[in-house]
Amino acid sequence: MYSEKVMDHFMNPRNQGEIPDADGVGEVGNPTCGDIMRIFLTVKDNIITDVKFQTFGCGAAVASSSMATELIKGKTLEEAWEVSNKAVAEALEGLPPIKMHCSVLAEEGIHKAINDYRIKN
Amino acid sequence: MYSEKVMDHFMNPRNQGEIPDADGVGEVGNPTCGDIMRIFLTVKDNIITDVKFQTFGCGAAVASSSMATELIKGKTLEEAWEVSNKAVAEALEGLPPIKMHCSVLAEEGIHKAINDYRIKN
Ligand code: FES
Repeated sequence: MYSEKVMDHFMNPRNQGEIPDADGVGEVGNPTCGDIMRIFLTVKDNIITDVKFQTFGCGAAVASSSMATELIKGKTLEEAWEVSNKAVAEALEGLPPIKMHCSVLAEEGIHKAINDYRIKN
Repeated sequence: MYSEKVMDHFMNPRNQGEIPDADGVGEVGNPTCGDIMRIFLTVKDNIITDVKFQTFGCGAAVASSSMATELIKGKTLEEAWEVSNKAVAEALEGLPPIKMHCSVLAEEGIHKAINDYRIKN
């Protein structure tokens, strides 16, 4: 049912945890399943120098956020904004249709964290 | 949104993993979210002497299976069969309504693992 990439990022999630003094924080909820995702950003000179995630969501949510954080680390805020949930799912070599909504959590969390940073700065 | 008991069992799941030479194995899927749960039993003289679980499910699924495995360890097969998803949710001091279906996975997984043991013996 799941690609090797998905299982790898589920079993060994990258960038899981929180950044206590984050420059931007995004928290989003998934109405379909009631799950929550938090994204923490450290930003220096418009570049995302560090990013972490927390989720109570399923394996697909863990894998999606793990992959999404890898994709945006080191990117400018504008580049990170363009990383769509489809790009995350493709980088994971696919997600079952019933699990695509879990990858949306990662995209929305990143957007909210970037907006939070922009409002504060 | 979640009780302290749920968060504790999510952050520190009990009995997570697999039993390679299990006496009974139950695998169930959740049609609502596409998640999977596996329960492994070691049975000696009608008593569940060891139990482990694996799931790709969300935090509520992890907490439910963690609590369910604690509730059935050391019990007879008949006693374990009677542990309902409601009993699991109560032991967790409640689950949000949108997450009750996750606790059903644990109950069904246990029933399937017990049936698997009975068929083999
Ligand atoms: S089912 Fe809720 S995040 Fe995947």
